Amino acid sequence: MRTRTGESVLSRAVRIFEAFTPEEPALTVSQISRRTGLHLATASRLVTELVSHGFLARDADRRVRIGVRLWELGTRASPTLSLRDAAMPFMEGVHDVVGHHVQIGVPEGDEVLFLERLTEPGAIINYTRIAGRLPLHVSSSGLVLLAHGPAELQERILAGPLPAHTRHTITTATVLRSTLAAVRQQGYAYCPGYFHEDALGIAAPVRDVRGDVVAALSVIVPNDAGAVSVVPVVRTAARGISRALAARGARGLPG
Amino acid sequence: MRTRTGESVLSRAVRIFEAFTPEEPALTVSQISRRTGLHLATASRLVTELVSHGFLARDADRRVRIGVRLWELGTRASPTLSLRDAAMPFMEGVHDVVGHHVQIGVPEGDEVLFLERLTEPGAIINYTRIAGRLPLHVSSSGLVLLAHGPAELQERILAGPLPAHTRHTITTATVLRSTLAAVRQQGYAYCPGYFHEDALGIAAPVRDVRGDVVAALSVIVPNDAGAVSVVPVVRTAARGISRALAARGARGLPG
Repeated sequence: MRTRTGESVLSRAVRIFEAFTPEEPALTVSQISRRTGLHLATASRLVTELVSHGFLARDADRRVRIGVRLWELGTRASPTLSLRDAAMPFMEGVHDVVGHHVQIGVPEGDEVLFLERLTEPGAIINYTRIAGRLPLHVSSSGLVLLAHGPAELQERILAGPLPAHTRHTITTATVLRSTLAAVRQQGYAYCPGYFHEDALGIAAPVRDVRGDVVAALSVIVPNDAGAVSVVPVVRTAARGISRALAARGARGLPG
Repeated sequence: MRTRTGESVLSRAVRIFEAFTPEEPALTVSQISRRTGLHLATASRLVTELVSHGFLARDADRRVRIGVRLWELGTRASPTLSLRDAAMPFMEGVHDVVGHHVQIGVPEGDEVLFLERLTEPGAIINYTRIAGRLPLHVSSSGLVLLAHGPAELQERILAGPLPAHTRHTITTATVLRSTLAAVRQQGYAYCPGYFHEDALGIAAPVRDVRGDVVAALSVIVPNDAGAVSVVPVVRTAARGISRALAARGARGLPG
């Protein structure tokens, strides 16, 4: 079903869903219209239909939010859930011992998408969020996923711009290429200050039953001495998750 | 945009999403066609479009699954996420001490919808799942939410059938009414064997900044002696989550 302008209802719905962010989870219909470029009447009609299906919800003050039903349908039978279920007991253990942030991410396009995160009040600064994304070259999880990713993905990232977040971020293809080789050889990524001066990311690969790397387990801790002892904790937990996945016969996420 | 049969593309997409369950997360297009009642050609065309948006994904063997992108858009700016973030540190603490299952649920229609669950290998049987639902009258979370729910919801549930799951399930309006009064008076629900003979559910209300009950925190433990000591643990954690929500100024989930 296409509208007169040739754009499908579904692709307009996607544009509306994409207008909502963790920073701005509630929008007026006018804001939605401006952000999506849809005419106000079109946006209003589509919002009303999406609300009727529970994909969006209206606040008491008529602002619009993502609906719980969209979360439910996206989560209930999601392939992310079996990975999350296998990972969670290990993540809880790491979090008990290491504190700060423990998270698991998967490759999505040219970024890492975080499925789950455990955190605690007063932990070191961390930019990852559940269902949030980060570029592959700046995060320890991303470097693990890139190091084990398809050759064409590696070539595309190596050929593209590598924006700096701090003076420690990898910004040249030469350094990135040797870092990826080191990550494969060592079995983990160790990223002091790559994304934020004060934070250290440490990540290890999670493999499916075939041995393919399907996710990265990572911790974010303060960027100071002593963190080297965290490396074997992360590596051990990542191997435990891989074994738990194999016991379920689970493969990587499709598509 | 409506098709010739008068059904919108979005409502057909909803039917397709609903065809996937945790038990059957991967379906062929023929199975989708049978379960949704959509013609094979219609189902095939719509699946292809949903795959192109990442709302569905195809396995190597061409079976179809829920797409990670649907999970991402449903989760990223979801109002469930702030409740989950406020609850998680308390849930981790309860899980460390009590073990088995700790979960948080919200009211959705005439059921309780579970947002998050911590569990451990070898824990007592538990039918709740993340993004899964249970009837209000059979679960400790459901009884807490019903006890504090709108009067019209209470009257509808009290008037309707109350199917038994075990010989301990509440099946009469008289007992349900007095149980709801007791839950409000005591500040928690204590449900030995209501859903499964061997399992005991204990739930306490989570309130938003206005004092409205917006969620229920619950544990599922073996239905045997000693579990009474878990009650103050659950009540204390639920109050902690309520305070954490108030500190964020968060209200309940919209609509």
